[in-house]
Amino acid sequence: MSIIMCQLLGMNCNVPTDICFSFDGFSRRGGQTGDHRDGFGIAFFEGRGVKLFLDSKPTIESSIAQHIKENPIHSLNVIAHIRKATKGKIALENCHPFIREMWGRYWIFAHNGNLESFEPTLPLHYHAVGDTDSELAFCHMLDYLYDRFGSHYPPLRPLTDAIKEISQKISSHGPFNFLLSNGEFMFCHCSTKLSYIVRQAPFTHAHLVDEDVTVDFGLVTTTKDRVAVIATEPLTDNEIWTPIVPGELLVFNQGQPITLDN
Amino acid sequence: MSIIMCQLLGMNCNVPTDICFSFDGFSRRGGQTGDHRDGFGIAFFEGRGVKLFLDSKPTIESSIAQHIKENPIHSLNVIAHIRKATKGKIALENCHPFIREMWGRYWIFAHNGNLESFEPTLPLHYHAVGDTDSELAFCHMLDYLYDRFGSHYPPLRPLTDAIKEISQKISSHGPFNFLLSNGEFMFCHCSTKLSYIVRQAPFTHAHLVDEDVTVDFGLVTTTKDRVAVIATEPLTDNEIWTPIVPGELLVFNQGQPITLDN
Repeated sequence: MSIIMCQLLGMNCNVPTDICFSFDGFSRRGGQTGDHRDGFGIAFFEGRGVKLFLDSKPTIESSIAQHIKENPIHSLNVIAHIRKATKGKIALENCHPFIREMWGRYWIFAHNGNLESFEPTLPLHYHAVGDTDSELAFCHMLDYLYDRFGSHYPPLRPLTDAIKEISQKISSHGPFNFLLSNGEFMFCHCSTKLSYIVRQAPFTHAHLVDEDVTVDFGLVTTTKDRVAVIATEPLTDNEIWTPIVPGELLVFNQGQPITLDN
Repeated sequence: MSIIMCQLLGMNCNVPTDICFSFDGFSRRGGQTGDHRDGFGIAFFEGRGVKLFLDSKPTIESSIAQHIKENPIHSLNVIAHIRKATKGKIALENCHPFIREMWGRYWIFAHNGNLESFEPTLPLHYHAVGDTDSELAFCHMLDYLYDRFGSHYPPLRPLTDAIKEISQKISSHGPFNFLLSNGEFMFCHCSTKLSYIVRQAPFTHAHLVDEDVTVDFGLVTTTKDRVAVIATEPLTDNEIWTPIVPGELLVFNQGQPITLDN
């Protein structure tokens, strides 16, 4: 398994679901099956609120990561990230996901990739706190959206078009795979590498890549449940993950990618 | 002990210190010695980054609160809050402390009090996500500061004067006791009730109000350490806490209130 730079994990569901199985495998890449030792973070939306856990330690050494594995949090939208520092020192303020408020909602963002010569013009309002290219790109994206739509939350279609537009511009500086959520939608941009799977009835069992653990989703779900999991590298080895086409921005809602009307 | 509305706990130090002793007593007020059962939160600055833990459960039932007690986090600036809902439903997005970014730094805010007829003009930029008077006041304060100083972090004196000015205006709507920190300074505004203590060498022992626990700070400190603890109600019963004068805004740095040059 090739593992480069950071890794992303996202989940979008139609009923609040815990991410323990996926996070268990994913977190082993933070120092055990992968060398993403430079911090991690995971954000769970709960209504309009967010539980955000960050640590500059590797997941396999972090007591917070251990706590998350042992105390399932149910959420409709989750974004997690394990870091291998490229730009920006190892520090809490450089751990993804990042959080900002826009239009009276929290926005959560995590990035995989490495942007070169990315020096956006002076910020209009959103400033980076740390020194990563990722946080700078997130702030630039929010500035772009806020500048474009003003203080009112726009309809989904023009919002998605605008996110796609700014993502393409930023992608010209390097790989810009990201997960972005406001608690309602999960925007997933693939620049080089990102895959997803939608699990729904009839549920089967799944086996992790990173450790010999199998779960039978049929035992822990109802027939109405639908869960999309998005990751840099597939987390299971007995299911078919769909690679997102480079350059594509998918919008997930209620546990599946949605098609936007023109 | 009279316990009304929410309660605040803050810590400002000259060396990274854990807040376990104070948080242990404080958190018992979240459902045991007090009836602040409607959620809690605690934020630890680590450099420019923040570890923010929020839960809509009472502290005494929260696995996150338990985790924090068992896994000491060392920080120069900590803000904690236990909630008794007055305005705004019981929900994660209504738990204090709140976080926003301004001037490339995170700002953390928690409030004790109840504002009546507080309807600031439309926000310039910072919007509340939940429906508490507290978050609205925080956003209004940031808008006021950003509008006043633009995109540049001002010197401490004019910044403090501006915080005092907007705090006085908001206080006309009701009790507005708050703790505000950007990781460097801790701004403490007393509108009706807030006390502090500065612990430094020679350290003695301290005994909690809320449970029969004593700690000998002489055993866990060096002679250079200095720690200020700020709380709605004194946390110990064998030390002399200094009430902050209503209407006063104290600025703590390096473990003590500082005097600003004119």
